[in-house]
Amino acid sequence: MVTVTLQTNHARLQQRLNDLSTIGVLPYGGVRRMAYSPEDLAARQQMITAMEQVDMAITIDAAGNIIGRYSGTQDLPALATGSHIDTVPAGGRYDGALGVLAGIEVVATLHEAGQRLKHPIEVIVFTDEEGEMIGSKAMAGTAHYTDAEFYQRLDGTSIQTCLQRIGGDWKQLATAQRTSQDVAVYLELHVEQGGVLEARECQIGVVQGIVSLQRYLVTISGRPNHAGTTPMDMRQDALYAASLLVAAVHDVAVDIPGDQVATVGYLDVTPNAANIVPGQVDLTIDMRDLSLETIETMVNALQQRVQKIEVTTGTQIQLERQHAVEPTLASPRIQETIAAVCDSLKLSHYSMPSRAIHDAQEMGRFTQMGMIFVPSQAGVSHAEDEYTSPEQCGQGADVLLHTLLQLDLNLL
Amino acid sequence: MVTVTLQTNHARLQQRLNDLSTIGVLPYGGVRRMAYSPEDLAARQQMITAMEQVDMAITIDAAGNIIGRYSGTQDLPALATGSHIDTVPAGGRYDGALGVLAGIEVVATLHEAGQRLKHPIEVIVFTDEEGEMIGSKAMAGTAHYTDAEFYQRLDGTSIQTCLQRIGGDWKQLATAQRTSQDVAVYLELHVEQGGVLEARECQIGVVQGIVSLQRYLVTISGRPNHAGTTPMDMRQDALYAASLLVAAVHDVAVDIPGDQVATVGYLDVTPNAANIVPGQVDLTIDMRDLSLETIETMVNALQQRVQKIEVTTGTQIQLERQHAVEPTLASPRIQETIAAVCDSLKLSHYSMPSRAIHDAQEMGRFTQMGMIFVPSQAGVSHAEDEYTSPEQCGQGADVLLHTLLQLDLNLL
Repeated sequence: MVTVTLQTNHARLQQRLNDLSTIGVLPYGGVRRMAYSPEDLAARQQMITAMEQVDMAITIDAAGNIIGRYSGTQDLPALATGSHIDTVPAGGRYDGALGVLAGIEVVATLHEAGQRLKHPIEVIVFTDEEGEMIGSKAMAGTAHYTDAEFYQRLDGTSIQTCLQRIGGDWKQLATAQRTSQDVAVYLELHVEQGGVLEARECQIGVVQGIVSLQRYLVTISGRPNHAGTTPMDMRQDALYAASLLVAAVHDVAVDIPGDQVATVGYLDVTPNAANIVPGQVDLTIDMRDLSLETIETMVNALQQRVQKIEVTTGTQIQLERQHAVEPTLASPRIQETIAAVCDSLKLSHYSMPSRAIHDAQEMGRFTQMGMIFVPSQAGVSHAEDEYTSPEQCGQGADVLLHTLLQLDLNLL
Repeated sequence: MVTVTLQTNHARLQQRLNDLSTIGVLPYGGVRRMAYSPEDLAARQQMITAMEQVDMAITIDAAGNIIGRYSGTQDLPALATGSHIDTVPAGGRYDGALGVLAGIEVVATLHEAGQRLKHPIEVIVFTDEEGEMIGSKAMAGTAHYTDAEFYQRLDGTSIQTCLQRIGGDWKQLATAQRTSQDVAVYLELHVEQGGVLEARECQIGVVQGIVSLQRYLVTISGRPNHAGTTPMDMRQDALYAASLLVAAVHDVAVDIPGDQVATVGYLDVTPNAANIVPGQVDLTIDMRDLSLETIETMVNALQQRVQKIEVTTGTQIQLERQHAVEPTLASPRIQETIAAVCDSLKLSHYSMPSRAIHDAQEMGRFTQMGMIFVPSQAGVSHAEDEYTSPEQCGQGADVLLHTLLQLDLNLL
């Protein structure tokens, strides 16, 4: 049993969330704060000021990551936390922001209590999470150090210009890389961005890892034909074949145990006219799960279905793997610690994968990683009406605080 | 048993087809001869000249229809035949053209033999079949006489300008209307535009009628969501629902006896991104059959499936009927006559509906109608590689000739 005495200041955390959300505020309560924009720069300055107020030393690395360091009592690697403050074009107030501000609030709580851990605590504001994730990728050494054009903005701004705006330097990007000698753990608090916790009436999600994502581009070739004069049994209808495939994608995800997901989100019909039997359909298949084996099982099941669909419909179906992201598993020890902390705080908890991408995915490639989820109302995210209540935000911050305290004791 | 002596000149019919196909010829052997275009005008003049050469009197009605009349020996209503010479933007050499030129060839054969029927024969070149069918609709009295804008071209040209180019007059359109007192039968020879005759190795199609077409616009409303973070059982996936509906449309057409067809040719996904569960799908359903009862049976079966799909997928599905074209049945007597003529000519024949639209559809609204089909190679139509062999064209013309001869005798 973990002993709990300290508590973060929930009202102060709300005040921090409110203050940050005024920068880039949108008409319906959301936020537009694109990476490297004037709003991003103003928000970064607000974070630096808040960190300095609670005795954190600020470093900005070559990737523009802000690293606020609250020193420890011993010469030990850091316990790192953080997230991002950039948003999608019409985002919410909580995605990313909560992780950064809860980290600052945790340090503020320790600072107020005059308490230092043995390990230093780092609160990291990662660069451009909603874009190319160059911040966490540079830290993990997974950025393309040589390929500046890959990171060029759509408006033509070079990555060097972007990084210089925020105190980084493209040419020195490799210097941002860190190791587990340097960062002992990385712990991130984030809103769930889905509806699982709310549906389960559960307060905290203990993240098992960040799922693998595999995406396929599928081309179905049939034969365009007159929708009147072509009898049903003489058709090679690419859309009928596609409909069987979309149903198959759904089936392979729900037919095996587990909570893997598979989605056809994009589908394009040619020639797409009411009176012509479709000759071609292009579509995407997006599959996600923590287990690569599960994804492989789905792919194999799908390929069997594809062969049957080809025969049934007289079409040809080509699957081409577009990309595959490796899963990042959370440290079992950190998961256990989060769960134990929740029990002490009398918060219900549920173990679940993260099916969205986070900076923790990259950090977990070189150090022990853990993530804490709090519920998103109606599962809404990347939208102006994203909402997590003050109480839920505070509960997440308390779990973050006490997990860091426990890790500080037990990692030695 | 019908006695057969006369035969059309197959080589001359081919020459007529070749001559016409030089006007608007395309690189791959097809034809572009849009209604009211310079090519259409040149082709119309070619038809008038050919008709005059075989002693036909030319009239152009207010809808711009060319009516070539080969007078009869008695004061009787006309036996009419014909089709159209306008094409789709990249059409073939046979669609429409064959019906007009075979009509002229039939009269040429009679003229050469110094033979007149009791009834006058009319060969009609209908205006703009591939567009609004204003020619046959004006003759049937089914055109919107008051709505000029409905017939305005996409390029802004008014219908009056179009009709004046070809000798018609929008303001007098109502004068083009005819009755069964005036036109005793209408018989049209046309290429099948589908692959049924070829698949059955059959020489002549005896058309039972032109099918009813009903078209529905369907909107499926689900909920757009993150393709990663939304568990399968919390989705309202509009595309998954659409896939079940597309399969249902196929099933309701093939599950009942008959050769009715049903097609989803158009489907549009919103927001249509690989990583977002689709929130909305719009699609069309096109159903065709000679029997309105069969279409009703399909619609009812579909509505039951729709309700189940709504429950299964948590979506809402709205069906809105966009338009419904009444079927036009061919005269049983004309069908019997065509079949008897085929038997005499030792040509195999097959009774089938026309699932494509023809001028005969409108003509059949006021007089006895019949249609003769000849095979289309590989069922291809509305494409440059549309092909019907010289022998098949000639067989069609012979059936047209002898059917007219039989009707001339038996209608009295």
